[in-house]
Amino acid sequence: MRVFIAGIDGYLGWSLAIHLSAHGHQVAGADMLLRRQWVAEVGGISALPIASRDERRRAYHDAFSRPLDFRVGDLTDYSFVQDCFREFQPEAVVHLGQMPSAPYSMMDQAHCVWTQRNNVVNNLNLLWAIKEIVPEAHLLKLGTMGEYGTPAVDIPEGFFEVEFRGRKDRLPFPRQAGSWYHQSKVHDSHNTHFAAKIWGLSATDIMQGVVFGAHIAEMGADPRLQTRLDFDQCFGTAINRFCCQAVIGHPLTLFGLGKQKRGFLPLADAMACLRLALENPPARGEYRVFNQFENAYSISELADLVQSVAADIGLSVDIRRYDNPRHEMEEHYYQPDRQHLLDLGYQPSRDMRAVVAGMLRALRQHKARIKAHEAALIPDIRWDASRRRSEVIG
Amino acid sequence: MRVFIAGIDGYLGWSLAIHLSAHGHQVAGADMLLRRQWVAEVGGISALPIASRDERRRAYHDAFSRPLDFRVGDLTDYSFVQDCFREFQPEAVVHLGQMPSAPYSMMDQAHCVWTQRNNVVNNLNLLWAIKEIVPEAHLLKLGTMGEYGTPAVDIPEGFFEVEFRGRKDRLPFPRQAGSWYHQSKVHDSHNTHFAAKIWGLSATDIMQGVVFGAHIAEMGADPRLQTRLDFDQCFGTAINRFCCQAVIGHPLTLFGLGKQKRGFLPLADAMACLRLALENPPARGEYRVFNQFENAYSISELADLVQSVAADIGLSVDIRRYDNPRHEMEEHYYQPDRQHLLDLGYQPSRDMRAVVAGMLRALRQHKARIKAHEAALIPDIRWDASRRRSEVIG
Repeated sequence: MRVFIAGIDGYLGWSLAIHLSAHGHQVAGADMLLRRQWVAEVGGISALPIASRDERRRAYHDAFSRPLDFRVGDLTDYSFVQDCFREFQPEAVVHLGQMPSAPYSMMDQAHCVWTQRNNVVNNLNLLWAIKEIVPEAHLLKLGTMGEYGTPAVDIPEGFFEVEFRGRKDRLPFPRQAGSWYHQSKVHDSHNTHFAAKIWGLSATDIMQGVVFGAHIAEMGADPRLQTRLDFDQCFGTAINRFCCQAVIGHPLTLFGLGKQKRGFLPLADAMACLRLALENPPARGEYRVFNQFENAYSISELADLVQSVAADIGLSVDIRRYDNPRHEMEEHYYQPDRQHLLDLGYQPSRDMRAVVAGMLRALRQHKARIKAHEAALIPDIRWDASRRRSEVIG
Repeated sequence: MRVFIAGIDGYLGWSLAIHLSAHGHQVAGADMLLRRQWVAEVGGISALPIASRDERRRAYHDAFSRPLDFRVGDLTDYSFVQDCFREFQPEAVVHLGQMPSAPYSMMDQAHCVWTQRNNVVNNLNLLWAIKEIVPEAHLLKLGTMGEYGTPAVDIPEGFFEVEFRGRKDRLPFPRQAGSWYHQSKVHDSHNTHFAAKIWGLSATDIMQGVVFGAHIAEMGADPRLQTRLDFDQCFGTAINRFCCQAVIGHPLTLFGLGKQKRGFLPLADAMACLRLALENPPARGEYRVFNQFENAYSISELADLVQSVAADIGLSVDIRRYDNPRHEMEEHYYQPDRQHLLDLGYQPSRDMRAVVAGMLRALRQHKARIKAHEAALIPDIRWDASRRRSEVIG
């Protein structure tokens, strides 16, 4: 299958290019390489060294004996998207090309507006280009479980049957996102659903949990095929950040009570799920929503897990609670469905410890890189748009 | 009260400036004057002649014996919004400054993206400027009943209590908007709700029905105080368009079955409701949603009404069904609440016939203007982004 990956240089995008290619798909992609800049802007760096775009293309050629069509360009420029689709004629488009950080979007007016404008416009451009150029193509769009927020009822997959005042309807499940970034993803979900309805586009909207890990089997031992792994306050997600903290002996940083629950999944599971969705496309005009995560965990459970696995390999690390820079519920009900991917054959990783152990072993070789950017580990971007470094509270 | 009107040159914005000033409020506003350009772009014109911005300012001075702070500028330019707020220090901000047409947004990629970018960014800018400069100010944001779509259950005002799998929560009522424009309003509603939650802003989100009529008592007899009245396929809404058609003897144009139901309200009711919301602001941090309409009517009921009132004053006009350029349900359940404004004292106009009769009498003097732009009456912008003039089907 010809798969176009928007955002091919990112954490998920680069991994997916390798994963799909190893499974016989023909991949092309585009990226503006902004993730590298954003992480530098907030004082971070990929804990595992990553290759430049040109080195990635050479490594890809060495691994798969064919060139990789990896374009540098801006998806908010419609003519660029048109050119990509006209030349590659994708059968599927995976949209990973967005600004993906909640804190980055909360910083100030400029970062908020940039995030929403970029994410909304580039998603619209992909919808229009599919309609105009490759109307049969399947759009696999990455949303986030964060779109739903933390309602007091179960979270279905996109839609639910409700009874209200004695009448029934199947309605989109209400979204209550918790950052300007997450709101941008809600906007994209609404726009994508609408495009499917009026134009008959086929779309899978993935409400993805928090991904962790930085290696999949298909990358093999070539370090040029490695994907990035961030640990800064903006782009470093919970388990990845904990592992980076563990290898330099920094306390694992819980925010607030640490009882916040979220869906999580290893990178290998994310790749397997995306491939399942691609290889089992929706019907023409169908808009389907998949909740994509291995399981739901509280943040403190995950910190305990990382602490315990670290101890097994001789790393002793504390867990500390910091005052929460976010505006979020710290104790809440959380019961999201994830049946659709299981129905397609998704087999969730059961061994979180093995994934964490692998990550710790890889990161141990790069302690100095993390140590040199240690200041980026503690958040100072607050949800009221002020800047104040979080303090230890427990 | 010091009220800043974003979009003060528009159909509602100009009317509101007059209405609030006549009721003792201190008004200022901004506009980019784009509505005048858009209507010209689609071959339309205001059926009732309107004054230029400078003439409007002079007429305002003559009517209220004080100058009107009416700035020309772009609300997507944050520094412009900051300057407005720093100098005027509004106690309330009414957001009417958006691109308001469904067909205009459906035309092509450029119009779709322009609409969403403009509407989302300028609403974000108002939210940020309120937070940074006048955090106590009340944001009165104009949304539309169209955000809800046409669900098979009653439409509450913004939120509903649901039971799902044995648990209960109060959730935002799901939005299923029917155009790129309406989607942009949904995005703005989500963003505004979020700003109220994290920053403690006070906001009233008005889900407004379709407004008709072009005169309110406070405009008196000065033609320079007249607001615009459009009849083209993009900016001419149902009753206004029917009245313009009636005075030139053009058949009234129903789309499809004509059984689509929507909430409608006269311009005078819209003004009274907005003033009620301003004079009864929400608590600090409260986000409240008002459904604002006089009553729900089917489009064919309204065509019958206009035909009947026209006959009373000697105008004979047919009603014709045209193939529907939109993707919408033509027969559907429609039962929206509108209790919140009634609770504040809103007294719905009961005499639709009188409003329509007044409009027909005013429009009769401008038959030539309408006649000269008759081609703009029949839609050719279709929801699949093609262009094809609608044909008579019944």
